[in-house]
Amino acid sequence: MRASIATVSLSGSLEEKLGAAAAAGFDGVEIFDNDLIASPLSPRGVGRFARDLGMAVELYQPFRDFEGVLESQFEANLRRAAAKLDVAAQLGAPLMLLCSNVATAVIDDDDLLAEQLRVLGDLAQERGVKIAYEALAWGRFVSTYDHAWSIVRQADHPAVGLCLDSFHMLSRRSSLELIEEIPGEKIFFAQVADAPLIQLDPLSWSRHYRLFPGQGDFDLVGWTAAIAKTGYAGPMSIEVFNDVFRQTDPRLTAIDGLRSLRYLEDITATTVGFRDGAVSPSLTRLTHSGPAEDFDYIRVAVPERHDLDGTFLALGFVHRGASGNGDDLWSQGDVRLIITTSGSDDTAPVGIVGIGFHLVDVEAASRRAGELLAHDVAPDPSPSSHVLRAPGSVRVGLSPAPVANEPDWIGRFSGATEPEPARSRAIDHVDHIALPQNWRTFDEAVLFYRSILGLVAQPSEDVADERGLVRSQVLANGAGTVRVVLNVLPTSVVESVAGGGARSPGHIALGSRDIFSTVRSLDLNGVPMLQLPTNYYDDLIGRFDLSPEYVQTLKALNIMYDRNSDGEFLQAYTETRDNVFFEIVQRLGDYLAFGASNSPVRRAAQLRSEHS
Amino acid sequence: MRASIATVSLSGSLEEKLGAAAAAGFDGVEIFDNDLIASPLSPRGVGRFARDLGMAVELYQPFRDFEGVLESQFEANLRRAAAKLDVAAQLGAPLMLLCSNVATAVIDDDDLLAEQLRVLGDLAQERGVKIAYEALAWGRFVSTYDHAWSIVRQADHPAVGLCLDSFHMLSRRSSLELIEEIPGEKIFFAQVADAPLIQLDPLSWSRHYRLFPGQGDFDLVGWTAAIAKTGYAGPMSIEVFNDVFRQTDPRLTAIDGLRSLRYLEDITATTVGFRDGAVSPSLTRLTHSGPAEDFDYIRVAVPERHDLDGTFLALGFVHRGASGNGDDLWSQGDVRLIITTSGSDDTAPVGIVGIGFHLVDVEAASRRAGELLAHDVAPDPSPSSHVLRAPGSVRVGLSPAPVANEPDWIGRFSGATEPEPARSRAIDHVDHIALPQNWRTFDEAVLFYRSILGLVAQPSEDVADERGLVRSQVLANGAGTVRVVLNVLPTSVVESVAGGGARSPGHIALGSRDIFSTVRSLDLNGVPMLQLPTNYYDDLIGRFDLSPEYVQTLKALNIMYDRNSDGEFLQAYTETRDNVFFEIVQRLGDYLAFGASNSPVRRAAQLRSEHS
Repeated sequence: MRASIATVSLSGSLEEKLGAAAAAGFDGVEIFDNDLIASPLSPRGVGRFARDLGMAVELYQPFRDFEGVLESQFEANLRRAAAKLDVAAQLGAPLMLLCSNVATAVIDDDDLLAEQLRVLGDLAQERGVKIAYEALAWGRFVSTYDHAWSIVRQADHPAVGLCLDSFHMLSRRSSLELIEEIPGEKIFFAQVADAPLIQLDPLSWSRHYRLFPGQGDFDLVGWTAAIAKTGYAGPMSIEVFNDVFRQTDPRLTAIDGLRSLRYLEDITATTVGFRDGAVSPSLTRLTHSGPAEDFDYIRVAVPERHDLDGTFLALGFVHRGASGNGDDLWSQGDVRLIITTSGSDDTAPVGIVGIGFHLVDVEAASRRAGELLAHDVAPDPSPSSHVLRAPGSVRVGLSPAPVANEPDWIGRFSGATEPEPARSRAIDHVDHIALPQNWRTFDEAVLFYRSILGLVAQPSEDVADERGLVRSQVLANGAGTVRVVLNVLPTSVVESVAGGGARSPGHIALGSRDIFSTVRSLDLNGVPMLQLPTNYYDDLIGRFDLSPEYVQTLKALNIMYDRNSDGEFLQAYTETRDNVFFEIVQRLGDYLAFGASNSPVRRAAQLRSEHS
Repeated sequence: MRASIATVSLSGSLEEKLGAAAAAGFDGVEIFDNDLIASPLSPRGVGRFARDLGMAVELYQPFRDFEGVLESQFEANLRRAAAKLDVAAQLGAPLMLLCSNVATAVIDDDDLLAEQLRVLGDLAQERGVKIAYEALAWGRFVSTYDHAWSIVRQADHPAVGLCLDSFHMLSRRSSLELIEEIPGEKIFFAQVADAPLIQLDPLSWSRHYRLFPGQGDFDLVGWTAAIAKTGYAGPMSIEVFNDVFRQTDPRLTAIDGLRSLRYLEDITATTVGFRDGAVSPSLTRLTHSGPAEDFDYIRVAVPERHDLDGTFLALGFVHRGASGNGDDLWSQGDVRLIITTSGSDDTAPVGIVGIGFHLVDVEAASRRAGELLAHDVAPDPSPSSHVLRAPGSVRVGLSPAPVANEPDWIGRFSGATEPEPARSRAIDHVDHIALPQNWRTFDEAVLFYRSILGLVAQPSEDVADERGLVRSQVLANGAGTVRVVLNVLPTSVVESVAGGGARSPGHIALGSRDIFSTVRSLDLNGVPMLQLPTNYYDDLIGRFDLSPEYVQTLKALNIMYDRNSDGEFLQAYTETRDNVFFEIVQRLGDYLAFGASNSPVRRAAQLRSEHS
């Protein structure tokens, strides 16, 4: 379908919004009246501006509080409508949106509503414009799409059709079955928005919490499939009111929006389309590639070369050599860490700067990423064949799964031709990687890892720490061999980052076969470990009915403990250095979580350690 | 009542929380278990730390998921309880909070619940601790205070009593009538929190949106009165989970919290206490003084002296002279503007830096402010006898209403002995003052102007602009002679301020008897006025059915228009200079609003003007 976006979904002036939508690659836009009224460009000028950018003005919105009124009021409303229809014509918009009356409707009579829409249809037709009638979820008399459809059918006017909006339909839990009774050509417009399933009054929910498709909980696949099956030939237009997007660079929001739209259409075509044996030709398709299968490498920037050498040696890593540009490779089995030196430049990123993933078909994955607006970045020193910029500041590399034991690129590190010595490996996999996220880029990052790397988002969790709430989102592949945790830090922390204060560290969690011996080795080698408070261990005894002797061992090694019905979890942390820390974990049984109940204690210990 | 606060209400480490509560003047604290567990101080050490700061540890919280379980589980729960009761004793807390079982309760039998509480009572008594049982609104079997009370009564144990929490009672709309049946000595603890009346699941509502008393919509006066009447002699303790407070300097939050508590108790004593002829001696009383009656002056800082002279002359102000420290006074009738020069120091505040208010009894108002933790600031050049620091960066002056036409302090301005020439005054009052607020200080600022200056908060409004949502809160006295508007700006704007970018301006709205001639005078004198887009005026015609000629006049003078059922409103703006702009308004009929529907257009024009 043609991709469109309502200007209300983006921040900035109308010119900035149109520029951002065009740069992302949208085919068209809906012009929001408030944006137009505040603009110094005339309606004709706005239409020209959009078309010069290669976009159609698909619709002018909204016109409201028109129908269901007494004759005297109706005349005033027609004058208002005529003026707005003139504006639509000047914009070059083929459609004007009419929302069902919220405020001024007094007559609950479908015959009258249909008649008044018919009169409006005549007025529109004279100007070469059509009316798309939309049921708002909180409309006075018309609040469901099937009711709106029955009125449109009764109006029976060539210039009067429907606008179907996913938010208004799905927020009311409307059944989608009746959509198939609507002829595609009477659906004039389709507006799409996702939303989290929260219990909130519909108006606030709609005005502040809408999300791009795939970022919320609505069944948009079912909705899109139902509309595609009618033969609807118009655009799919994103209309999202969101308090975060209102404050975000519109160029990033526009890319995120178009990515979400393409992803939604492809999933719809793949899951519903194939199932019903009727893939709509109107749905955008993406190149298919499997999900990220494993971590290829993790790239960490440190201010000084050798800063982490002691930690790596204590953990049992082997230094495999250096590359031409001075990067060092450390490996242990399938865990590969590339260390790069940022030097004394304060503005150079330190901490986790790159993650490489193995994929079965890298070329297909790269094509898919491009279709989803994530293009290869300029020359990057990481060894992947394709490197993308992920939301936040991490670069994501796509590499083929190695044919032999080790990836070919290891040969680029001088000295690395010699294999890692065979011996028992304490660390045998990357358990997960945790990346700090700004609240602005959080939803965008979730969509990036889902749509481009095929990871699946697990339910997010909030953890309170001493500076605010940390929102934590796990994304993982089906096998659990790739787990990325996005942590949204409190604004206070982010602001202190922006103000040049403390950075927010990422961390690498390494899976150990024997956490006790791994931590002992770190201690013996003088690697500073995060010290945990006695109160934590005192509480642990009562909380899990553990033996005091076992807890004493945990305490001596600063290992944290968690248990659920699936199994047990042990975790320990190195002190944060240069914006990164390492977590050593050991999972016992089928424990799949991340010890969230330990997080506040760990965060408090880290804050204490930073201040000391 | 003794003033207490739960450590969960404040951000920071446990030591920082305790320090902040003590500095504000709280008598005691509730120690939140998570704060204790994360602390490097032992329970005994925490108790000593609090007492050394002059505070009692009133309660240790929470213990949960204890009662309503099978015998086998009960034994484990008793072991857990014993350990926590030991901690309570080590803290020196006379009380441990027990929340009604949410997760593990399986037996819905009040006899069993009472019996299990009785056993816990014995365990507590052995350690010199008592149990305060609290019904959580989402408790499995016990979710109302009257149910909790019936179980406590049945348990009939001297170490088992009730905790009454305003959130859990008022969020369920529980009737408060049954409180009077509870003997005061069986109420062991009272926790208070306000909240906005939003439709949200109770757990999220409770964990993220609680507010200090007076900042939300609950009937806390009725609740406090009911508890006071029982003869309850324990502390009133603030327990607020709030996502903003979690990110705010705990020292400010603690002051705000204690202020809210004192204000609540005083209002309760005044309104309910007097009505029922039974003022509880336990309620804190404040000195009473009337509300702010009028603006005394507004103090504006400009980088260069004479920067605003042209504007003032064009508006009909008279230069009345300069004070010893170089401040200039301009007046027109009762409107007095003091201009001070900030010089080239980039860190010195510019824009509105002070507001003087007239009060009938300034000494009483100053005493009241002190009781509400707003103390006179160090020598301040403004002419008020008492000067307070308001949240944000404005200083608020308290002055006696003038006996004669003009305040005495005018004599301090040399040349000002000469009266203002008698002539027709275009500007005859300050319509309102708008102050930008950071989202962190918004609730605090609302409480400041309500409790200290006696202003009444009107419903707040959200307006979307190109950079985010602006939340707007009007505070006014009953006569409408003082109106202060607090505008919370989008985080993007605030961050750019923090980052040294654009500041967020305040503005002074001056009431004109004839806005057309006032604006013509500004135009003639070359004062740059904010230019509004043609589209706005084109829309106006249809929106209000105005004559094209009238709209043409508005457009020529860049005057905005609004109308409601009470009357009409005209407003025009000077361009922003040095972080302040002036609005000229004229109200026709009984229009009392502020033209909110014009705000997005005005904000867009201002942003455009800043960028050009």
